[in-house]
Amino acid sequence: MTQLPNTFFRRLATPIDLLESPGPSDQQLDSVICASANVPDHGNLKPWRIHVIDKAEQKTLSELRLKIYKIKYPNREESIYQAEGKKFLRSPTLLIVKSAVNIESSIPVAEQILSGGAFCQNLLLGFNAIGFGAKWVTGWPAYDSEFLAQLNLKTPNQLLAFIHIGTPKKNIYADKKITAKEIIEDFPSKR
Amino acid sequence: MTQLPNTFFRRLATPIDLLESPGPSDQQLDSVICASANVPDHGNLKPWRIHVIDKAEQKTLSELRLKIYKIKYPNREESIYQAEGKKFLRSPTLLIVKSAVNIESSIPVAEQILSGGAFCQNLLLGFNAIGFGAKWVTGWPAYDSEFLAQLNLKTPNQLLAFIHIGTPKKNIYADKKITAKEIIEDFPSKR
Repeated sequence: MTQLPNTFFRRLATPIDLLESPGPSDQQLDSVICASANVPDHGNLKPWRIHVIDKAEQKTLSELRLKIYKIKYPNREESIYQAEGKKFLRSPTLLIVKSAVNIESSIPVAEQILSGGAFCQNLLLGFNAIGFGAKWVTGWPAYDSEFLAQLNLKTPNQLLAFIHIGTPKKNIYADKKITAKEIIEDFPSKR
Repeated sequence: MTQLPNTFFRRLATPIDLLESPGPSDQQLDSVICASANVPDHGNLKPWRIHVIDKAEQKTLSELRLKIYKIKYPNREESIYQAEGKKFLRSPTLLIVKSAVNIESSIPVAEQILSGGAFCQNLLLGFNAIGFGAKWVTGWPAYDSEFLAQLNLKTPNQLLAFIHIGTPKKNIYADKKITAKEIIEDFPSKR
């Protein structure tokens, strides 16, 4: 009987600093984003939005990031501020994926957010499928109310992911060896 | 330049009532579950668990579901109770996917939950890849504290999905036509 190879969902998760130009073209971005949106989405709410952050916008966003960081963490060494200011500049293309929850719908918010998690996973696999490395990261800005306000993002919405995309200098895969035992639990009634 | 076909993430989302026996074998379940666990999981926490609910356990779980439902919604028509009591019995195999958040970790809970959304998406695609139909559903039990207590599930954990799996009587695909315009938003600085 057919089984699924352990490498079926292997991801091209080359570290961000090894993601070089070119990033995906506008057409490639559109094709991956549209295909990836085919996720379970109860009520067909499409409760997710994407900002495509090109190089110029990466600079604007980096300045914002650093400004807030300096207020949050004054008196750090200059080298730390420099590193912080470069975080959004490390790849040719940066996506911000955020939820766009419909709070008037009967579909629970938690479920709309999870649809976004599914969407992000498709995005990674989709960019990989056309040869790009893609890394899903978060970090403090994903949870910082001032940063999020600049993206017009308010509770119950979440910044789901920063996804860095580029041409991998080397192919480095995310490989996890997980056994079924670690994940599958007996049904409580059996215990 | 390579683009991603719109059907790349097409899912075999045959309605649950058309999912027949056989469901996946134990080996097939293990192979799909292990492969699907290869998702972004910051800190390598593996913050998700699965119960595989076979036919006998589906009966136990259905009785529990109906018992709680009758207390929540007394005085409904008998036909409604009958339908409710069958919800978990509709496919050969039922998975319960739940989060298993590590609250002592520095990784935010929201991020651990999203990793679970990515995992569920892989599960759907994985079962499809070996010929099974798979449907991700929730419904009231996913949010009912009494039902969740029976699964030892407490806040901040969530029941992420009930996934019904079986051999599709007909191949019915989830096809969404989504345009990039609906999802991609300009960066706020542009407005």
